[in-house]
Amino acid sequence: MELQTVKLMANLIKSARDYLDSQDYTEITVPRVVRASGACENINTLFEVAVDRNFHWFKNRRAYLAQTGQLYLEALVPALGSVYTIGPSFRAEPKADNRHLTEFQMMEIEFPGGFDDLLAEIENVINSIARGVVKANGKIGLSKENLERLSATPERFPKINYDEAIKLLIRLGIKKEWGDDIPSEQEQLLVRYHDNQPIFITRFPDPMWNFKKELEVEKFFNMLPDRENPGRVLSADLILPYGGESVGAAARVHEARVLVQRLKNSKMFKRLIDKGGSINDFGWYISRIENEGSVPHAGCGFGLARIIQWIKGASDIRECVSFLSNKENII
Amino acid sequence: MELQTVKLMANLIKSARDYLDSQDYTEITVPRVVRASGACENINTLFEVAVDRNFHWFKNRRAYLAQTGQLYLEALVPALGSVYTIGPSFRAEPKADNRHLTEFQMMEIEFPGGFDDLLAEIENVINSIARGVVKANGKIGLSKENLERLSATPERFPKINYDEAIKLLIRLGIKKEWGDDIPSEQEQLLVRYHDNQPIFITRFPDPMWNFKKELEVEKFFNMLPDRENPGRVLSADLILPYGGESVGAAARVHEARVLVQRLKNSKMFKRLIDKGGSINDFGWYISRIENEGSVPHAGCGFGLARIIQWIKGASDIRECVSFLSNKENII
Repeated sequence: MELQTVKLMANLIKSARDYLDSQDYTEITVPRVVRASGACENINTLFEVAVDRNFHWFKNRRAYLAQTGQLYLEALVPALGSVYTIGPSFRAEPKADNRHLTEFQMMEIEFPGGFDDLLAEIENVINSIARGVVKANGKIGLSKENLERLSATPERFPKINYDEAIKLLIRLGIKKEWGDDIPSEQEQLLVRYHDNQPIFITRFPDPMWNFKKELEVEKFFNMLPDRENPGRVLSADLILPYGGESVGAAARVHEARVLVQRLKNSKMFKRLIDKGGSINDFGWYISRIENEGSVPHAGCGFGLARIIQWIKGASDIRECVSFLSNKENII
Repeated sequence: MELQTVKLMANLIKSARDYLDSQDYTEITVPRVVRASGACENINTLFEVAVDRNFHWFKNRRAYLAQTGQLYLEALVPALGSVYTIGPSFRAEPKADNRHLTEFQMMEIEFPGGFDDLLAEIENVINSIARGVVKANGKIGLSKENLERLSATPERFPKINYDEAIKLLIRLGIKKEWGDDIPSEQEQLLVRYHDNQPIFITRFPDPMWNFKKELEVEKFFNMLPDRENPGRVLSADLILPYGGESVGAAARVHEARVLVQRLKNSKMFKRLIDKGGSINDFGWYISRIENEGSVPHAGCGFGLARIIQWIKGASDIRECVSFLSNKENII
């Protein structure tokens, strides 16, 4: 527990919230003990919840700790417009190193709008945070170097698509194939190539598309396919200096039929079945949009500890949480 | 998921937060997967966390879902002054009825100050919430009756101590003994006796005091004994119309020696030992105040669903959550 980090967290939440309030977002509170629909970012890192060793305490249903509140927010967009939530995300990460936590704060937003609106909204939030920190630095005490870097945050960030990112990495001397994942060291290479400022990597390969090869890249099932770029989804990762992948963003599928089809074809779904889950875990969301319809919308999740890494210029995420939670340490 | 409740939650969080911001509180994010120090409100209703059925995944330590963030806030008061957090509280409540949830939102505050300051702070927060709802009612649509009741919220609430409450209940025809718990129906009797507006019940019996009889009343171990009323602690419950006990509040013990003594003598501690816990679960907090000292301080937790019951005039808590979580229902 380091005071500078605690103060930074308070400051960045306030700046982000003030921005979202100014755009008429509604703050939502979402459940954190959930069925698989709140736990489906990466089904391999699920925490399970029990009472007196009983894993079926909830009316014979398995209960997990939420990795995301995304679907709960998406369900409210048609009625409320722009919505957000701030709260814990839980991942049973087996590594207790400079990049992994078992619990971290995530700010998630969803709103009626398209992919370009989404990228602009992320740029606006990140700029609000940078301005807020610079303004309050009398209390926070960042180094001159970090302060100068944050003050120079551009209003708009370079956007390179996944295909371009792979080509650029090859050009920078990395051995790489199209379809590979981009690990964090290589993300930082791309950031340094772009003046050590935030960049977006956009339009990742669509995991539902038949590329006739196995892809390493894995993406959430309800990302919207890009009509102009067959085999790509309208997704983006915001890569920050130090923090690396700090925001995961996408335009969402809003048609129930397409959603069910993509869900059933996803790798995540196969793993869910293996864990004893079923399509019923998503029943509430599917029937909601079947019955009430949805609207085109987009959203993203901001990993707040990684944003603090960016602010502090820290390559170790353990220095960027108010209370450390990883496999080696809970309090 | 009912839209009025979702809107009310957003509105009340904003009003409360605006008030706390105006008083220079710092917002803290606290861990929700914890050792026993974050789970000690009622050790009988603990959720346990596992990975692949392993309850010792965290470096051979048992992990629980937090019932309160109180000690994490208390640890920061000496350095930061007034602090607060908003987030989920988890209870494995076996009853899925009109009063029980397995997950609900709680707003917790801690600040350097005494018991009277604490009661005033709660009155200020509740009044800010009432004013905020009344002001925004164009969007929320409460009934005229609820609106009038909320508009008439007094600035200061009647304060009756536990001994007086028992006497009054006896006078109102209830069969009752000193030392008994006050169940929710009887709390509502006391509320109706006081113009159907919020009241405090204060100065509960000190569970550490030898009354030569078993008490039903159970209170958290670090509540500060009342010097002027031997055998009582400086605690208060805010009782709201409809919501019932909606805020639990107390001045805190801040001396390490007294804290350890009271912890070791608490019923809760005996249950913790039975569950395989030990004093080490509290080690981080005890060593922090041993090494760095603390200051006199006080704090409380606001149960937000119960406050929404008060706003809506709803006797069923299930109508007062954005997403329902109880033993019969998780999504």
